[in-house]
Amino acid sequence: MTHTSRIDHYLEDHLDQSISELSRLCEQPSVSAQNWGIEETARMVEKMLKKRGFETQNIPTDGAPVVTGFRAGKSPRTILFYNHYDVQPPEPLELWESPPFQPTLRDGKLFARGVSDDKGHLVSRLFAIDALLAELGELPCNVRFVVEGEEEVGSPNLKPFIEKHAGDLSADACIWEFGGVDHRDVPVQYLGLRGLCYVELSVETANQDVHSGLGGSIFPNAAWRLVWALNTLKSPDEIIHLPGFYDKVRPPSKRDLELFELMPETADEYRGRYGIKQFLKSMTGGVELRVAESMMPTCTICGLTSGYQGPGSKTVLPARASAKVDFRLVPDQTPEEVLEQLRQHLDSHGFQDVQITYLGGEAPARTDPDHPFVKLVVESAAEVYGQPMQMIPMSGGSGPNHLFIETLHVPIVTAGIGHPGSQAHAPNENIRLDLYLKGAKHIARILLLYGQEKV
Amino acid sequence: MTHTSRIDHYLEDHLDQSISELSRLCEQPSVSAQNWGIEETARMVEKMLKKRGFETQNIPTDGAPVVTGFRAGKSPRTILFYNHYDVQPPEPLELWESPPFQPTLRDGKLFARGVSDDKGHLVSRLFAIDALLAELGELPCNVRFVVEGEEEVGSPNLKPFIEKHAGDLSADACIWEFGGVDHRDVPVQYLGLRGLCYVELSVETANQDVHSGLGGSIFPNAAWRLVWALNTLKSPDEIIHLPGFYDKVRPPSKRDLELFELMPETADEYRGRYGIKQFLKSMTGGVELRVAESMMPTCTICGLTSGYQGPGSKTVLPARASAKVDFRLVPDQTPEEVLEQLRQHLDSHGFQDVQITYLGGEAPARTDPDHPFVKLVVESAAEVYGQPMQMIPMSGGSGPNHLFIETLHVPIVTAGIGHPGSQAHAPNENIRLDLYLKGAKHIARILLLYGQEKV
Repeated sequence: MTHTSRIDHYLEDHLDQSISELSRLCEQPSVSAQNWGIEETARMVEKMLKKRGFETQNIPTDGAPVVTGFRAGKSPRTILFYNHYDVQPPEPLELWESPPFQPTLRDGKLFARGVSDDKGHLVSRLFAIDALLAELGELPCNVRFVVEGEEEVGSPNLKPFIEKHAGDLSADACIWEFGGVDHRDVPVQYLGLRGLCYVELSVETANQDVHSGLGGSIFPNAAWRLVWALNTLKSPDEIIHLPGFYDKVRPPSKRDLELFELMPETADEYRGRYGIKQFLKSMTGGVELRVAESMMPTCTICGLTSGYQGPGSKTVLPARASAKVDFRLVPDQTPEEVLEQLRQHLDSHGFQDVQITYLGGEAPARTDPDHPFVKLVVESAAEVYGQPMQMIPMSGGSGPNHLFIETLHVPIVTAGIGHPGSQAHAPNENIRLDLYLKGAKHIARILLLYGQEKV
Repeated sequence: MTHTSRIDHYLEDHLDQSISELSRLCEQPSVSAQNWGIEETARMVEKMLKKRGFETQNIPTDGAPVVTGFRAGKSPRTILFYNHYDVQPPEPLELWESPPFQPTLRDGKLFARGVSDDKGHLVSRLFAIDALLAELGELPCNVRFVVEGEEEVGSPNLKPFIEKHAGDLSADACIWEFGGVDHRDVPVQYLGLRGLCYVELSVETANQDVHSGLGGSIFPNAAWRLVWALNTLKSPDEIIHLPGFYDKVRPPSKRDLELFELMPETADEYRGRYGIKQFLKSMTGGVELRVAESMMPTCTICGLTSGYQGPGSKTVLPARASAKVDFRLVPDQTPEEVLEQLRQHLDSHGFQDVQITYLGGEAPARTDPDHPFVKLVVESAAEVYGQPMQMIPMSGGSGPNHLFIETLHVPIVTAGIGHPGSQAHAPNENIRLDLYLKGAKHIARILLLYGQEKV
């Protein structure tokens, strides 16, 4: 048997054990937004790396600790895995079919908060490493892990961490925290991530809520102030009105458009899955939709809170109102500049009373689609998935890839276990077991091939 | 001793007993918006009336039951008390210094949800009746009670009730559910109430929340749709943009302006009590502020809900968003017309996707400031409070007074135990015990004088 078929057999034979290990990790809540279970989860992850013979460190930051691991392999070249052990908040709890922190197998899927984003990816990589160690007795190349605990809140402490430890984190290539297949089960290669600027906007107009019969026509109302302020940020034509917001937006290149052109149509898939009647700006699909979803910046209201929200009516004039708002950024926008534009915009529109609390952000960043490591990863997928990966110039999501690209000077690829129905950030988050196995097989192949290539 | 001084002594000597009875009633939650404890409270109120020799009825409606009581007195003339046994929701619970349904005495005040609005008024009236019965052996005139359980949700079933039972509810004058003193401790006579049209506006754009990195630039966002729709209802200049909204608004009469002119300045009191920095439309006080607060219609956002509202950040694109909105109406607006204007407005501004749920309403109504019963009530206050009542042409609040004025053809006065710091509809609702006693003394005098007057 070849190396790869022995490794594949190992993975097929040990799937249950790996899913058990993943379930134990998912039982442990680790909600960074709520500072829930972070330290405990970091210790679990460190233990899991140690078990595989990695030299580990559990490094404190101003927020959640970062867990690192290194194990030398045959080739002196190093692959760096970036993962995160924190998860999104599980709310709204009532929409989960099984409890979010009680991993449950149903219909060939494992359901749990964080099972896809990102614990399943982390454990599937350890699973591939188990197979390589079992079948080869060593790793084909050096492997390094950086597993942080604040990705879901914008990785506020990762920049100083990476900058401080850059010397200890040297690597030749990086495999990103996520990856997976599209709605046709074709594996996809995301070559960039949008940036993020996440803020809370809040207004306080009085020291207490007031009976609306008293205050309605004479007192300022925090909810109205917030609505009027938000309304100035983006108009129903989807244009974002911050001063200079679009100045640094780079349009897609010719190569980007070529790659977008090769991508399959997802419009019907989106309509069906999410019950969307129509897309914004009368888009119907095609390259237009693909460019919009990943290469245009956004301004999204993620949440609104004010006054009475219970059943029935309460005639109250709210003293406080707030909104969670995220801006997705594209090269060469930066969260720092958008934050300044936002303050300037609110002030110039008469909303000095609207407070901005910065809750985290990232710069956008991309990897060259023609880098040799990208080629290796894209082509090695064919044996597992029946075809090479589909290349996607940018993902709509965000993450701290710019830190790695700019500080560690590594190309970044995606390879993993995700699928479009994984419900990341939503109730009933899940992974498909068949894709979990394929993801591990692909990771094992990447390490094997990378170790065999000439340095 | 005169009748009144014997009655006053009785009330002073029995204050503790009455406060105990009030506390028991406040311990029983009766939140109409949440359908919590309504039937139980209706039975308690009926018992309290029976104990005073009233013939009672507990009459079912399509919503909460109405409790009625009648006891004949010396004079054949009948005074009708309108009260309600339901209360506002207690939320936000964390802002209460003592639990809302655990009545607590502090600093000469009794704190509990509903203690001022409206259970304290009801029990203080029974207290006055106890004193009259104890000292006179009979009531000076007929007394009728109508105590409903849906005032706090806009009295949706009171209209058919009053119309159906109009023959059994005959009366010559009506004392309204509330009343009390202003910030100088001067008793005030409210001669009218604004109307109300309370709605929930809601939008649904998808069958589930979506990761904001995926949907932000291509999927409709329920929170944005709601913000844009709300923004069209009222502009920051406080102008309400429903078609024809102001057409039926009657401006204050010459007599109204005379009465407003006699009213004290409350601007500083409002600023201090509520921590308001400035009033809307640059108003600073005077007749302008008084007219605005009671004789102008309003559009108030009472609550906003959408997406993630927990701590920190969650990058989610909400599928659902809703707002609670109340319109206060003035003669001759009606809730039915405003509801039609609202649908027409949303449709014509492209917001057919915004659903309207009508949560209750009232027409506005007023009593003639020169009616003889108004004079009796205003002047009889002098012995208790040291001066006659201040007459206020309209209150900013709402209630079903129009039903009584139009169907039962009675003048309506206010007389009660309220004070400006009572925190009605807010945390730490309270009554002052000194004003509780004064309110009972005033009510006893009104009944006594009304019984003595020629029919």
